[in-house]
Amino acid sequence: VTDVLSIDPRTGQATEAVAQESSGSDVDRACRQAAHAAPALAAMGREGRATLLDAMAAALEDAREEIVLLADRETALGTARLHGELTRTCYQLRQFAEALREGSYLQASIDHAADTAMGPRPDLRRMLVPLGPVAVFGASNFPLAFSVPGGDTAAALAAGCPVVVKGHPNHPATSLRCLEALRSACRATGAPEGTLSLVFGQEAGTALTLHPEVRAVGFTGSERGGRALFDLACSRPDPIPFYGELGSLNPMVVTPGAAAERSAEIARGLAQSLTQGAGQFCTKPGLVFLPDDPEGRLLLQRLAAAVGDVPPAPLLTQGIATAFTTAVGALRDRTGLDRLTPDPDGPLEGYAVRPALVSVPADGLDPDLLQECFGPLGVVVTYRSDAELLALLQRLPGALTGTVHRGAAEEGLPAQVAAELSQRVGRLLFDGYPTGVAVAWSMQHGGPWPATTNPLHTSVGMASMSRFLRPLTWQNAPHDVLPVELRDPDPGIPRRIDGTLVLPSGG
Amino acid sequence: VTDVLSIDPRTGQATEAVAQESSGSDVDRACRQAAHAAPALAAMGREGRATLLDAMAAALEDAREEIVLLADRETALGTARLHGELTRTCYQLRQFAEALREGSYLQASIDHAADTAMGPRPDLRRMLVPLGPVAVFGASNFPLAFSVPGGDTAAALAAGCPVVVKGHPNHPATSLRCLEALRSACRATGAPEGTLSLVFGQEAGTALTLHPEVRAVGFTGSERGGRALFDLACSRPDPIPFYGELGSLNPMVVTPGAAAERSAEIARGLAQSLTQGAGQFCTKPGLVFLPDDPEGRLLLQRLAAAVGDVPPAPLLTQGIATAFTTAVGALRDRTGLDRLTPDPDGPLEGYAVRPALVSVPADGLDPDLLQECFGPLGVVVTYRSDAELLALLQRLPGALTGTVHRGAAEEGLPAQVAAELSQRVGRLLFDGYPTGVAVAWSMQHGGPWPATTNPLHTSVGMASMSRFLRPLTWQNAPHDVLPVELRDPDPGIPRRIDGTLVLPSGG
Repeated sequence: VTDVLSIDPRTGQATEAVAQESSGSDVDRACRQAAHAAPALAAMGREGRATLLDAMAAALEDAREEIVLLADRETALGTARLHGELTRTCYQLRQFAEALREGSYLQASIDHAADTAMGPRPDLRRMLVPLGPVAVFGASNFPLAFSVPGGDTAAALAAGCPVVVKGHPNHPATSLRCLEALRSACRATGAPEGTLSLVFGQEAGTALTLHPEVRAVGFTGSERGGRALFDLACSRPDPIPFYGELGSLNPMVVTPGAAAERSAEIARGLAQSLTQGAGQFCTKPGLVFLPDDPEGRLLLQRLAAAVGDVPPAPLLTQGIATAFTTAVGALRDRTGLDRLTPDPDGPLEGYAVRPALVSVPADGLDPDLLQECFGPLGVVVTYRSDAELLALLQRLPGALTGTVHRGAAEEGLPAQVAAELSQRVGRLLFDGYPTGVAVAWSMQHGGPWPATTNPLHTSVGMASMSRFLRPLTWQNAPHDVLPVELRDPDPGIPRRIDGTLVLPSGG
Repeated sequence: VTDVLSIDPRTGQATEAVAQESSGSDVDRACRQAAHAAPALAAMGREGRATLLDAMAAALEDAREEIVLLADRETALGTARLHGELTRTCYQLRQFAEALREGSYLQASIDHAADTAMGPRPDLRRMLVPLGPVAVFGASNFPLAFSVPGGDTAAALAAGCPVVVKGHPNHPATSLRCLEALRSACRATGAPEGTLSLVFGQEAGTALTLHPEVRAVGFTGSERGGRALFDLACSRPDPIPFYGELGSLNPMVVTPGAAAERSAEIARGLAQSLTQGAGQFCTKPGLVFLPDDPEGRLLLQRLAAAVGDVPPAPLLTQGIATAFTTAVGALRDRTGLDRLTPDPDGPLEGYAVRPALVSVPADGLDPDLLQECFGPLGVVVTYRSDAELLALLQRLPGALTGTVHRGAAEEGLPAQVAAELSQRVGRLLFDGYPTGVAVAWSMQHGGPWPATTNPLHTSVGMASMSRFLRPLTWQNAPHDVLPVELRDPDPGIPRRIDGTLVLPSGG
């Protein structure tokens, strides 16, 4: 039996053992309970699950102070950020509750029996139904927004799928406290036992991904870890969808016009975005293209100063801190690369590191600089011409986001840059910064490999439910076996009826 | 260089060599042309591609007589069936054209900049965009509906994705003739070179699945072949979605009430569904549960007689005929299994086989009977009680369809059967037969493994486009870089605006 320790990144000290790693039979029990819960969770219906999600938001808020203090002790992300993260999670739960009540996520469609150009067509009725138990891998960097509570869990529960979370080892006490809050909401609203479980340990994660009852996996983490689990999910006798968010460079292009017009503002905004949360955001703009002209060089100088002014901050875990220090150290010894921020003067406490900025000319953009480095490192690439810039962009791997900063009067280059970036990203920003992902219907959080394992989906926003739903068609079904959403009387949700999208009459 | 032969299944004679297997450089050229075509195909817009699809339907109809004769010579499916198949394909192309004009498939959503409970939200606009070049593997059993023309090709082109088809070796002349017709439509409507290509050969299929420019694969075929290609697609440095339709038993349950009330009708309908197209439908009801009571036994007797009356028919290929004969032969030697149809008296011409029906008691339903047998074989399982039936259903693998035949006054058992089946299928039928898949908004053609590799999708109906689309969000984008569907003025399509689904005002 291996203890799961709660460690303070500010000191590196383990304060307590809060749990044990889960055994194979623990995982099996959680998955079987989830499978057993699935029909009852589905049977709660849209209103029942909306009530559950609202109660979960209220329960998290009731325990807010305790949860935020625990999370801060385990992640050192700061209470302000963690309060915001919890608010975001509660907001998202309530928005899913609204989406359930609105009902369009079901894609309900009715084709009455009819004669068509193809001959007689039977009565067909289609909507999305829950996929079954979902495994969720908690992320290190979002203890409240992508962990036991958070996007994947909320989306799966909203869809009607029980969840087994594999808790991230860097915040076990936070995970347990959140589980307690969420389970109290389950009890209060009559959700079945087995709606939400928590397991710990790498072997438990493997067992979860391979368990016959698990129907899909949501994962947020490293490219290496995610790829290994993705391969496992695909290797099953019955492969299951694996929704992994892995690594993303989030390229940002500053055009010559933007550098000339907004140098100070961009330096300030970019330094903030690069170092926010100690650079541990999946949307950190890790690769920046600046023009190799006087305005671009001034911007680079200002950016270096701004990044250099940011004080050291602890990373989440010893592993992340070591990987970061090693990566930055390797850059130091590299020829043709300018290191623009000072080295730390002496060892820092706990897992703290100092933000770093480097720059290379276009021909120095080697493949190893096209890998995400988790933590406060920015790589600047300087370009000498539009053609050189556009050729560089064609070499970029997939990313969650891509950003263009353009001058007020520029048209040709920004449009070309946007066209190149749009092939490779899930969100295209103009004159902004990619960190800070709004929870909204129109948000997209996902992108071509390696940003995510499946570019058709999002892990933020209401559309993220669709990862955990599958279509089912009823043919010539008697009305009494049909779900209420597919019976003829208007159930108060948008539906497609005989090919035409129809809004609810009471709406 | 290996010749691709055109073979007549009625005689087993190769009539001509119509093509050569494609080389690695042929595949590479086709994929590069497809990638080159992608932006231009996307730029045709919804109306441009709708015009292309309409023109494709017209071009296929113009060549109808020639295509049907070629397809009949290469597949022996009969001209009546093949005329129907071509009609279906043209109907589907035109329905996709309508879906493009209607525009809801884009899932367009606009969230204007606003203050929210989470603080200020930027302007966010999201819709689905083409995924990129798609590889389509033609199926042996649908030379016109799942091959060069057909569901996958139509869905991908509608989505805006160029297509490279790996033609099935059993109908190369048909494939080439269809390609010619579809390409003439491309030329007539200004679609880019590289919109649609055709390659031949197993190695070409492997190369296609691994080609860096290919963004998704649509496949219809055997579980073994599909699994091998699925594994390849997942093994890529950048894994891509693989939409495979593999094997399906399409279980059908006849309740005691239905057997008592509609014995003759069910025997006739089921025999027809089992042997239609020589049993080479993906939706063939291959596994039938009948009550072990006097009415069930009478139904079984009638079914055996009806199946025995169906004359021999040629299967599509020598490989399929050999596999079928071997599988049926292995059943003959099995203890505890009743063979209910006569053996063929002497060898049959070409690839012809005789339909076969066997029955086993519930405890004889071994795992090897839970594998699809392609061709006119039906396996009947007799059950002695409701409990025995429900326990059997829990052992079933995923399937495209599941069917319940129930008595007029029955309620409890049919509902329980439907609940069990609905966990394992994509389409649930009542009192009907699963062969014959209507092209409609509410159709679902897909199901849990091994029916399809991804139960979230359909390969028939308008929703099948979503396999080849990915979401993209524009944040704070100037209006001139936005697609017309995401600009503020009503573009005449359904959109979600600030969270509310809105129908076009002119609609």
